[in-house]
Amino acid sequence: MIDRLIEKIKKTNAPICVGLDPRIDMVSDEIKEKSFGEFGLTKEGAADAIYKFNRGIIDATYDLIPSVKVQIAMYEELGIPGLIAYEKTLSYAKEKGLIVIGDIKRGDIGSTSKAYANAHLGGFNLSYKGEEKFIEAFENDFVTLNPYMGSDGIDEFIGNCKEFDKGLFILVKTSNPSSVQLQDLVVDEEYIYTHMAKYVASWGKDLVGKNGYSEIGAVVGATNKEAAKTLRKILKNNYFLVPGYGAQGASAKDLSVYFNEDGLGAIVNSSRGIMCAYKSEKYEKCDYMEAARKAVLDMIKDLSENCG
Amino acid sequence: MIDRLIEKIKKTNAPICVGLDPRIDMVSDEIKEKSFGEFGLTKEGAADAIYKFNRGIIDATYDLIPSVKVQIAMYEELGIPGLIAYEKTLSYAKEKGLIVIGDIKRGDIGSTSKAYANAHLGGFNLSYKGEEKFIEAFENDFVTLNPYMGSDGIDEFIGNCKEFDKGLFILVKTSNPSSVQLQDLVVDEEYIYTHMAKYVASWGKDLVGKNGYSEIGAVVGATNKEAAKTLRKILKNNYFLVPGYGAQGASAKDLSVYFNEDGLGAIVNSSRGIMCAYKSEKYEKCDYMEAARKAVLDMIKDLSENCG
Repeated sequence: MIDRLIEKIKKTNAPICVGLDPRIDMVSDEIKEKSFGEFGLTKEGAADAIYKFNRGIIDATYDLIPSVKVQIAMYEELGIPGLIAYEKTLSYAKEKGLIVIGDIKRGDIGSTSKAYANAHLGGFNLSYKGEEKFIEAFENDFVTLNPYMGSDGIDEFIGNCKEFDKGLFILVKTSNPSSVQLQDLVVDEEYIYTHMAKYVASWGKDLVGKNGYSEIGAVVGATNKEAAKTLRKILKNNYFLVPGYGAQGASAKDLSVYFNEDGLGAIVNSSRGIMCAYKSEKYEKCDYMEAARKAVLDMIKDLSENCG
Repeated sequence: MIDRLIEKIKKTNAPICVGLDPRIDMVSDEIKEKSFGEFGLTKEGAADAIYKFNRGIIDATYDLIPSVKVQIAMYEELGIPGLIAYEKTLSYAKEKGLIVIGDIKRGDIGSTSKAYANAHLGGFNLSYKGEEKFIEAFENDFVTLNPYMGSDGIDEFIGNCKEFDKGLFILVKTSNPSSVQLQDLVVDEEYIYTHMAKYVASWGKDLVGKNGYSEIGAVVGATNKEAAKTLRKILKNNYFLVPGYGAQGASAKDLSVYFNEDGLGAIVNSSRGIMCAYKSEKYEKCDYMEAARKAVLDMIKDLSENCG
């Protein structure tokens, strides 16, 4: 799957993913009016509005970008109707040819980890009395994982990567201020995130594709250039998923160190910067779809001028 | 909520939770026959079977125990029908007066963390044009959390604990072998899990209830007595949620150090040991409900003889 992602990045010249992490207050009034009109002020109404909004963002941008990142938390907040909207968003993005990154940050062990992997990265055979049926819950191409429990939380996902041609991004250094509390503790003169990066490198070493990158990548927040430089050296053959561009404060100038010399190695996420572009002065004469498209074009230009 | 949990533990003399983490192969044939007969070999069929099986386990044990722990991964594996079964399992357990621990191990930041907290621990007000409606997705009393991202991943949940009278169990030292890869790294002569315990103590210090325990507890696996002794000292006022009894290898003899001198401070989980009791030789003449009840009684006796 990493080769498919890289080929799409090369084709679009856009090392980006659009984050579909909408909350109801981001959705345009026109859509809300219709969905709440039909379903009332309910989970169903909010989930319907969010799904329709997502479709608009996808329609406006899918020919410009390789992938979307869908943050499951925003859908869980709306319970079952929200999760139906999540499922439909993944399907619609795939229909449009996009690579789908499920931002789920799961992490557990043993049969629990296997269940998460089956749910979010591939599927499994349900069998009863000699009959078998393949079950797929959520159609992601990649998912994000949390490594706190060590390889027991990762192995089942790696198994599913091999079986179903999928990929992973494992949290290494996140973009938030309190990431330092654990990730920047120092063990044997190296940060915890450096140790985690070494684990990720070892977990991914048997899964390198024809473009020289592993199916197993790392989440490396856009807000720490020094960390990125260190991690780039350890994770030469691993893609970085980079949150924190735009709304979280990082600019493209800061991001060149996240890429390798081949111009590859990183995919930068923007969520609010695209979804809420229509609320910013810069795009104020546009509807939300036009604004999203322009914001994507501007982001591509920004990255190519600064990280090309 | 921790006071309610403690009062129920005292009343039942059972510092335990029954883990409702069923996979379809654990479910008794009779139930599977019926559910697959009605819904076919589908997600709906498997989810129906699992929900009915859960109801049986709850019916057979609810008067003996304070709480259940429901592992969401097993439900996510079955997609939307699975998550409906999760929702219904939580509701049924609450109807029966049980305290519900949602084993979700989420961890994210900012608005994403808030969305997870709203989804799984309380709820939020959906508002549009001056109208407001309270939305609750999943009715947990406690949830488990992953601390890899630091306090940014915890704060929103603590906010919801205060607002809705709820509690947390934060991963500190897990029961799996590879937990050592990160959790047992040494920083300033102390294990990472010790550092995490200090964070948990500080996060929980303003939320101590009338029994002397905080709403913020820790997950401490049953497989490491030495870790438990250290953590018991740091986390005097924090409950331990203890997985790993029975099927994962720990016996009640190993668990006395997990409790404080007041006989409180820990709640021990058993999942397979209860749900699959009917498959073990010890209870082979029982149906799954009788076997679960006997296994719970045996577990209570075992703990009270060894940890009393």
